[in-house]
Amino acid sequence: MNTSVGIVYAQRAIFDTPLTFRSGAVLPRYELVYETYGTLNADKSNAILVCHALSGHHHVAGHYADAPENVGWWDNMIGPGRPVDTDKFFVIGLNNLGGCHGSTGPSSINPETGKPYGASFPVVTVEDWVESQARLADLLGITQFAAVMGGSLGGMQAMQWSLSHPERVRHVLAIATAPHLTAENIAFNDVARNAILTDPDFHGGDFYQHGVVPTRGLRLARMLGHITYLSDDAMADKFGRSLRAGKLGYNYGIEFEIESYLRYQGDKFAAYFDANTYLLMTKALDYFDPAREFKGSLDKAFAVSRADFLVLSFTTDWRFSPDRSREIVQTLLHNHLNVSYAEIASTHGHDSFLMEHEHYHEVMRVYLDRIAKEFSA
Amino acid sequence: MNTSVGIVYAQRAIFDTPLTFRSGAVLPRYELVYETYGTLNADKSNAILVCHALSGHHHVAGHYADAPENVGWWDNMIGPGRPVDTDKFFVIGLNNLGGCHGSTGPSSINPETGKPYGASFPVVTVEDWVESQARLADLLGITQFAAVMGGSLGGMQAMQWSLSHPERVRHVLAIATAPHLTAENIAFNDVARNAILTDPDFHGGDFYQHGVVPTRGLRLARMLGHITYLSDDAMADKFGRSLRAGKLGYNYGIEFEIESYLRYQGDKFAAYFDANTYLLMTKALDYFDPAREFKGSLDKAFAVSRADFLVLSFTTDWRFSPDRSREIVQTLLHNHLNVSYAEIASTHGHDSFLMEHEHYHEVMRVYLDRIAKEFSA
Repeated sequence: MNTSVGIVYAQRAIFDTPLTFRSGAVLPRYELVYETYGTLNADKSNAILVCHALSGHHHVAGHYADAPENVGWWDNMIGPGRPVDTDKFFVIGLNNLGGCHGSTGPSSINPETGKPYGASFPVVTVEDWVESQARLADLLGITQFAAVMGGSLGGMQAMQWSLSHPERVRHVLAIATAPHLTAENIAFNDVARNAILTDPDFHGGDFYQHGVVPTRGLRLARMLGHITYLSDDAMADKFGRSLRAGKLGYNYGIEFEIESYLRYQGDKFAAYFDANTYLLMTKALDYFDPAREFKGSLDKAFAVSRADFLVLSFTTDWRFSPDRSREIVQTLLHNHLNVSYAEIASTHGHDSFLMEHEHYHEVMRVYLDRIAKEFSA
Repeated sequence: MNTSVGIVYAQRAIFDTPLTFRSGAVLPRYELVYETYGTLNADKSNAILVCHALSGHHHVAGHYADAPENVGWWDNMIGPGRPVDTDKFFVIGLNNLGGCHGSTGPSSINPETGKPYGASFPVVTVEDWVESQARLADLLGITQFAAVMGGSLGGMQAMQWSLSHPERVRHVLAIATAPHLTAENIAFNDVARNAILTDPDFHGGDFYQHGVVPTRGLRLARMLGHITYLSDDAMADKFGRSLRAGKLGYNYGIEFEIESYLRYQGDKFAAYFDANTYLLMTKALDYFDPAREFKGSLDKAFAVSRADFLVLSFTTDWRFSPDRSREIVQTLLHNHLNVSYAEIASTHGHDSFLMEHEHYHEVMRVYLDRIAKEFSA
């Protein structure tokens, strides 16, 4: 059997103990929206936490009763008989703190002011997310995850779990990720942020009160993002130099199919995503750098880690290239940790981690089946 | 001796015969600003035309008497004893039609209306530029160039010369260029264009009358452009993850050195470059595709060419990668044309073509010395 988890529903957890961020900012109270799939076993040893990337959220698998078309973003990976088998695992997906899908974030109402947080919402780091997620684990009575997994920014959170709470995670599945962003990665993020920050409708982050949304900036940010998610080859295969109208128009409207695709993706995204959340997510990416506190030594940063690791990369991912995954693998080996590594041949660039791909899914399945034996044996 | 050409001055050519563009648009009259270095020989056989790329202009070498700091953009390449030796060659640089450095362009006053052309300025193609340049050659009495050369978009013009006027160019020097843009290249251009087009200060291209400039859009376009001009490695070497203030600020100001660099480049560019010219230049890049009229056959497109070619690429150029240059070389070989090809090992990405690099300059020097022998013998 290999099916979807079917109908799911979102839950809400409320945390009344103040959370102190890396920046020093304090949030007196916050809420996290989450979903769970499968059943937590008696000794609560079969839980997997799925961490999301830049534009992700808690709706990871299945669909809602009243919206069958709204399928979770990693549905192909999670379900009965799927690589993350919900007949064996209890899977948790959440919307990160600072998000815009129900968890407390910049667009939430600040109870102290009665207005959206906006610019006053703290800049969140990967470490802060792990702390907020640890409290959710506490609430669910999970002292140790069978695995924490994620792709891209989600993979950074999974790795951070093994650094912040080494005793609370048995396996880390770090997919299409990196030990830190390169200057080029930061540069792309900075252009995206500047598109938003300089949009006159941004109003310094407090656009909510002005009844406007910095659509132009968000749209540009997403268009640019999409270029970095795809591979040059994938774009060439999918769009090439095809002209939408079959001939050149000699104007600045949409001419090439790739332009049509990008603008469509940009418009779609700008219609629902929060601009402040976008800024915050890109900053969390830029900041992630476990080696920083160890004078640049990633080996020393991972010395505390006790988890086993599965590290996966994709050949055409130029955003977080296989070289970056190999850096992680090297560090884990230097620390005598158990690590499995696979470099998956895929044409889909960074986006590959979201795709249904036989070799990729088989590697995930085999690794997770092995984990399942640890608690079912 | 290897020196600069020294003091130079710009000249202006006026063309009163209407020019019909590929788009069908007609410009009744236009002006081109140009500079020349060296001396045209008696039979006018030693002329080299230098075509510029996106943000280039006619000031290619030397400096102005009243502005010694304003050195031409390819000064390291051109001068007495330099690879393009002005003791042997008569070198011409011009500002392309549609530019913003003195030649007729969107910011010029349309004599018919007394206002800047703005949105009414025609979209210009590489073929149109070659026609406008051919008229300049006519004016200077040059029936055949010893060489037409350029990097990037300039290389496209050099190649187009051999297609539009095969009998008028003996050598084509096509550097860091491509037979057409990929979908990814177009995608980057489209994001840059959208940044400008959606800037509220753009006013549909007629911002001149509103006394404003779409600075935000131009700035974003240039920031993005810079990422594609540099290599990942060059950025890592130059900026890495260095923090400007030495520590994280947890805000959306400049934190990493790469952000400081990009914003500085963006601001500098937005202060002088014309937004409509930027749009027009990126469109010319997108449109260039000699194979299009030959059902995708680049070989057939180059069947008319009679020139000898020097094709150069740079190992870390991911904008116009060596693979793209090899496509050009293959096509030239299929057409039994003389072609020399060198792939230069450089860490500087696409920008390499503007840099002083020993191997690169030596290849240029040797090739051009050979050309010089053709007319001095």
